[in-house]
Amino acid sequence: MTRKPIIGVMGGGAAKPHELEDAYRLGQLIAQNGWVLLNGGRAAGIMDASARGAHEAGGLTVGVLPTEDHHGMSAYIDIPIVTGMGSARNMINVLSSDIVVACPGGAGTISEIALALKSRRPVILLNVDMGALFEDYHSGGQLKHAATPEQVIAHIKALLARP
Amino acid sequence: MTRKPIIGVMGGGAAKPHELEDAYRLGQLIAQNGWVLLNGGRAAGIMDASARGAHEAGGLTVGVLPTEDHHGMSAYIDIPIVTGMGSARNMINVLSSDIVVACPGGAGTISEIALALKSRRPVILLNVDMGALFEDYHSGGQLKHAATPEQVIAHIKALLARP
Amino acid sequence: MTRKPIIGVMGGGAAKPHELEDAYRLGQLIAQNGWVLLNGGRAAGIMDASARGAHEAGGLTVGVLPTEDHHGMSAYIDIPIVTGMGSARNMINVLSSDIVVACPGGAGTISEIALALKSRRPVILLNVDMGALFEDYHSGGQLKHAATPEQVIAHIKALLARP
Amino acid sequence: MTRKPIIGVMGGGAAKPHELEDAYRLGQLIAQNGWVLLNGGRAAGIMDASARGAHEAGGLTVGVLPTEDHHGMSAYIDIPIVTGMGSARNMINVLSSDIVVACPGGAGTISEIALALKSRRPVILLNVDMGALFEDYHSGGQLKHAATPEQVIAHIKALLARP
Repeated sequence: MTRKPIIGVMGGGAAKPHELEDAYRLGQLIAQNGWVLLNGGRAAGIMDASARGAHEAGGLTVGVLPTEDHHGMSAYIDIPIVTGMGSARNMINVLSSDIVVACPGGAGTISEIALALKSRRPVILLNVDMGALFEDYHSGGQLKHAATPEQVIAHIKALLARP
Repeated sequence: MTRKPIIGVMGGGAAKPHELEDAYRLGQLIAQNGWVLLNGGRAAGIMDASARGAHEAGGLTVGVLPTEDHHGMSAYIDIPIVTGMGSARNMINVLSSDIVVACPGGAGTISEIALALKSRRPVILLNVDMGALFEDYHSGGQLKHAATPEQVIAHIKALLARP
Repeated sequence: MTRKPIIGVMGGGAAKPHELEDAYRLGQLIAQNGWVLLNGGRAAGIMDASARGAHEAGGLTVGVLPTEDHHGMSAYIDIPIVTGMGSARNMINVLSSDIVVACPGGAGTISEIALALKSRRPVILLNVDMGALFEDYHSGGQLKHAATPEQVIAHIKALLARP
Repeated sequence: MTRKPIIGVMGGGAAKPHELEDAYRLGQLIAQNGWVLLNGGRAAGIMDASARGAHEAGGLTVGVLPTEDHHGMSAYIDIPIVTGMGSARNMINVLSSDIVVACPGGAGTISEIALALKSRRPVILLNVDMGALFEDYHSGGQLKHAATPEQVIAHIKALLARP
């Protein structure tokens, strides 16, 4: 593809310190690889941390906002997409991502993992345990696991190298 | 409430015979209790079976379609809502339901359970095992389990009786 | 069609007394003909008046709400569809209507007329003057004019009688 | 604002040669001013021409696609936002634009003008005649007219200079 790949980073509005560090590092690596980072755009948790990581590394960040204006938006978003659709925008997040990375989160993040799998997007879980829920997708190769941001990047590179 | 309660029934487009029987029975009981049945509206699996159960028992059925026309719609839908939004319509399904019942399904159904919980709708799982995924919602009382359509109805009655 | 036709009634949240009377009368006639009335569901203007007309005549009313809950809903809506999508729900209004009737309104109503025409729905304007804007649709027969609720009903009957 | 302003360019999938030239020139000027161009993203008419103008001038282009994949996308889109929502994505186009420019088009473009005005976005019409339809918005200053791409740019600069 001639355009830059878009890597979606999903994850909760509330997160633990080490999860935020991972999200920041992930955003940084995405930018350093020349990819575009896309997330839910809010100034909270995984969204804010991953956008900050990418932005501070000189990358381009896209935030697909649930709100109908820029209120509550992360300061590290370059391109805000304003949907006014609440969590229905989760579907836009996953459809717009060439590859979806899910960090720890709550019900919203789980909905994005499920919608991404249903929409045939490759999904990489970074320290997210879904139990046996998506076993079929894992054995089929659409769902992958990673323990570090660096492992996520290795998965993305392998996926992008496919013909 | 003076209007009739709307009971959402989520579940897969592909389902096993006993799951279809449960969905049919559930639709029947929803109609017999004077409630409106709402589902994804397609002529497949849990959607078709639950709509048929309600329709044949004289109830009213609403189908929130992913398509931009009536193609592929269940013949047992009285009120088709045509969204043209694909799986983004899952959010409308759960927001429009006073109570959400989830039958067995795939990633689409899991996205609806997650979106319903995030949107603060009561959710009843009919023979759906989500592992430890939504443990917090279960202990908080928003998520309930049932093994038969009759147990689902008992949960709904208790929820509707709340002040 | 074996299900009841769904007649969409669009129009402003603010309206003049004689416009509200027309909307009430239109809702009444839609119900008396055994059709379902669908509108934007809010407790204001054309939406409230048309829903009241249909409801008081014993008809069924569907309201496609822009909000993510029932706040601000007309008391005459039987089936609230909760979208949480703001004016993006205008597209659902027109796609869900077998025939769209537009009463006087503002920019929101004009967007619905435009979306309905683009989506190939028959549109009847009740005392709405769009100037030369949709001349092509008028000469092609997709767009019709009416001066009274009774004329709207005559148009609807003719459209429904088509093979 | 520290991020780059997003200028939405609406307009038809079918257009006349001089309208395409204007759209190309408009895209070029948007890019040369350091703004982001956003449009409907399809490989047709005003969308393709304005994206090409911006892209070839080194600007960044965002396309909000109606489809659920990249099929039919303009080759000059850098950031495709995939909605799978058909014309419901028109609302996202206008909400995401700091300023909306409308070029000649059909019913879809008219719906975007109407939705933009309702959503309180400044709208500039480039050789689009809406008759008396939005007279109030024009006299209130939210709606402006232009006869050339250069006049559009002058309007945008004046709008962005407001405190």
